[in-house]
Amino acid sequence: MPDTSSLDLPPDEAAHLVRVLRVRPGDAVRVFNGRGLECEASVTHIGKGSVAVAVQRVVPAAAECRVRVTLAQAVLKGDKLDDCIRDAVMLGVAAVQPIITGRTDVPGMAFARGGRVQRWQRIAVSSAKQCGRAVVPEVHPPVTLAECLAGDSSDVRVLLAEPAAGEGSGPGALRARPAVSSALVLVGPEGGWTPDEVADAANSGAIVLTLGRRTLRADAAALVALSVLLHVWGDL
Amino acid sequence: MPDTSSLDLPPDEAAHLVRVLRVRPGDAVRVFNGRGLECEASVTHIGKGSVAVAVQRVVPAAAECRVRVTLAQAVLKGDKLDDCIRDAVMLGVAAVQPIITGRTDVPGMAFARGGRVQRWQRIAVSSAKQCGRAVVPEVHPPVTLAECLAGDSSDVRVLLAEPAAGEGSGPGALRARPAVSSALVLVGPEGGWTPDEVADAANSGAIVLTLGRRTLRADAAALVALSVLLHVWGDL
Repeated sequence: MPDTSSLDLPPDEAAHLVRVLRVRPGDAVRVFNGRGLECEASVTHIGKGSVAVAVQRVVPAAAECRVRVTLAQAVLKGDKLDDCIRDAVMLGVAAVQPIITGRTDVPGMAFARGGRVQRWQRIAVSSAKQCGRAVVPEVHPPVTLAECLAGDSSDVRVLLAEPAAGEGSGPGALRARPAVSSALVLVGPEGGWTPDEVADAANSGAIVLTLGRRTLRADAAALVALSVLLHVWGDL
Repeated sequence: MPDTSSLDLPPDEAAHLVRVLRVRPGDAVRVFNGRGLECEASVTHIGKGSVAVAVQRVVPAAAECRVRVTLAQAVLKGDKLDDCIRDAVMLGVAAVQPIITGRTDVPGMAFARGGRVQRWQRIAVSSAKQCGRAVVPEVHPPVTLAECLAGDSSDVRVLLAEPAAGEGSGPGALRARPAVSSALVLVGPEGGWTPDEVADAANSGAIVLTLGRRTLRADAAALVALSVLLHVWGDL
């Protein structure tokens, strides 16, 4: 990218800069393309709903995780998936795949108009900005567990199961696997997985993982599982 | 405890059983004393604001963590410490010590009447019930960082520092320590620790730990740190 390249910011970022951050021509800002490129820039022009910047210098971006993790998280009640996505982005996942499971307690109608997926994508952008990631993870539209398993080509699959289910292995099971470069991490909804879902995932080669002896809250389970897994894989 | 011992429940638990769960005489309930004893019981009498139960059988409680962890968490804005306490109890900490730090953005007045500490203690009780712990961790009244360090006698101290501070070690530093049976885990407020605070903790023997390369949200940092630490210590 040449030193003096100029670009117009997307309308929502322009609006945020002008209305919330009240930038003026000459102010220094940072811009990123969401695919790993981050630059220092200065504001050159503020129009009606538009902001143009002159790019000055490429900033070395924080390194991404070595293991490309997709969090496949069952849709949760209310707006609880918002927090899951925000925290998963902060921990460094490469993608989030919301899934509809047997015990997902959210009407399918809720996704019909698609506004929710767009909100999740905006949350991913804002979390990436906040934690200093130059790469914005993709948030995909919800699919069923079967569709998720069928479409996945990760090196390793891990399904987080409740201790009460009694069928999981501890994190030791992960160390037995050779070095992985991609992983699918499946976390269930408030009511947990159905026995059939656990069996389907296990039959597809997933490690059924149990962490500790206590039942984790559904909206904290992904953060706990990702923390332990990224640590085991050397990224945390 | 004899098979037929009878006891009156505390008023708030009695009110919850009658008004929310609508129990009736003869219904089966579980009671626990918060210090490790959990029992099956049946409701024998419902009075005005009181519930008596007959204890029938001691239930084997879920094992507690091997390492006795105290989470020393800087008080956060709004009610964000509520979630931290709920999640820390779920992960298995033995105690929570709220601390006031140089950048804690909460007026001291907020604790003057003590209602907040009582609310945190109620959250610890309710989280223990929900995740199946028979032991309720203590939540202490807030103290300063200096008071916390002076009053602590744990085998190991760990202070979680932001990657931007550039002074921390990775989790490898924890493995160098011999087996610990108690630990103090210090997590800062929204604005992070001051350099003096990090130095004071390090001078008191604390390991300054950095997890990953991204800035963690203040209200998720404790959950991430506890997940990794309890995993390293073999409890998760």
